[in-house]
Amino acid sequence: MRALLTISYDGTNYCGWQRQQNGITIQEILERAISRLYGCEITILGASRTDSGVHAIGQRATFTPPDERIAIDRLPMAINSQLPHDIRVIHSQSVPDEFHVINDTVRKTYRYQIDNSPIHNPLLNRYSQHVKTSLDYEKMKQAAKFFEGTHDFAAFCAANSSAATTTRTIYSLEFSKEGHIITFDICGNGFLYNMIRIIAGSLIDVGIGKTEPAGIALIIASGQRERAGKTADAKGLTLLSIEYD
Amino acid sequence: MRALLTISYDGTNYCGWQRQQNGITIQEILERAISRLYGCEITILGASRTDSGVHAIGQRATFTPPDERIAIDRLPMAINSQLPHDIRVIHSQSVPDEFHVINDTVRKTYRYQIDNSPIHNPLLNRYSQHVKTSLDYEKMKQAAKFFEGTHDFAAFCAANSSAATTTRTIYSLEFSKEGHIITFDICGNGFLYNMIRIIAGSLIDVGIGKTEPAGIALIIASGQRERAGKTADAKGLTLLSIEYD
Repeated sequence: MRALLTISYDGTNYCGWQRQQNGITIQEILERAISRLYGCEITILGASRTDSGVHAIGQRATFTPPDERIAIDRLPMAINSQLPHDIRVIHSQSVPDEFHVINDTVRKTYRYQIDNSPIHNPLLNRYSQHVKTSLDYEKMKQAAKFFEGTHDFAAFCAANSSAATTTRTIYSLEFSKEGHIITFDICGNGFLYNMIRIIAGSLIDVGIGKTEPAGIALIIASGQRERAGKTADAKGLTLLSIEYD
Repeated sequence: MRALLTISYDGTNYCGWQRQQNGITIQEILERAISRLYGCEITILGASRTDSGVHAIGQRATFTPPDERIAIDRLPMAINSQLPHDIRVIHSQSVPDEFHVINDTVRKTYRYQIDNSPIHNPLLNRYSQHVKTSLDYEKMKQAAKFFEGTHDFAAFCAANSSAATTTRTIYSLEFSKEGHIITFDICGNGFLYNMIRIIAGSLIDVGIGKTEPAGIALIIASGQRERAGKTADAKGLTLLSIEYD
């Protein structure tokens, strides 16, 4: 039996999800907390390797409890008592041993937030990219439609990706606007390294008039990273949910 | 001629607005930045002495520029270049010498935010008070009506207040709810020391069933601080706006 955790975090102070030599990561903090609870070394496997500065509402991770001292539904309270305030386990459930937190994913949803105020709102500073040039929201919405569907997203993949294939399916890319805040939620079967942040950068290019909405189709077709926009700031990105069958 | 600034800040890392011996304050950071720009000591007067940890979208402050080297409408850009990211001057305008940033205030609006999730959302940790007990939102809305109007708010004033009178007028207290987030905006002609945080604590008492909505009228009438609720967390409070005629 395995435990499947749902985890929220403010990624500002961490070097991303995955354990590494050169900085404190969310995985490391969680493993330390869970290992302390059980009194033995515990390794967890996360569903998404969020980058440094990226946030999460619904990250997922599994581990195998070494004993049954802690009931599965009591795990959030127990683990949270050992965590800093910027990381919280919000749910836990048991899953069969065959369950694989990465391979069994059917859908992931991320949110990207842009503060389009003339001056960056300090209360949004941790959670949005600032773009001071006024963005054409309607054009960004038009451009978003070209991303939906199954495409080869090679143009929207960081150079150092190790993905076997660059084809992915985007089920939806939905925009909303409230005051100066422009938000999009993107849902797909999976995303390449930096893919959403490069999509965000390309949509900002549309918003400032550097790229026409239909130009997005040409960039996708080209497969050339240099034709897509810059990689937008990590801090604007939040992992919303990861779904399983 | 004076300059009237509108200022936003994330108060998490500061000991409130007003200059003091024992910690870094927003006033001090702003005065240092403006003094550096003009090459001489500048003192600013803030409209509201927000407490340690309280945030602002629309704080106001005035100062007298020693010369006209910087056009008034260029002040935000000039001052922001000297500020940390959690403080921003978002607007500036010139006002006559007779203008008084505190005495001429006709209306102040604050927002208080409560995260009523079972587990505190880390992305709201800096900007809300967590209440894990499920709150009765309808009762809180009913209770809010008793605060509106002109009352002696002695029961909602911290013991160390130096206010000449404890009578204030609340123009409106409006609730909204989105998912687990309960927010109220309170608008009045002025507020006593800790008044909004004590109102928030008293409304939480109503939400958890400790106080009936009509009990708020009795607490106001009693004038007794100990009958009102606890002072809610500073981090849930944001100064939204200060208005002048």
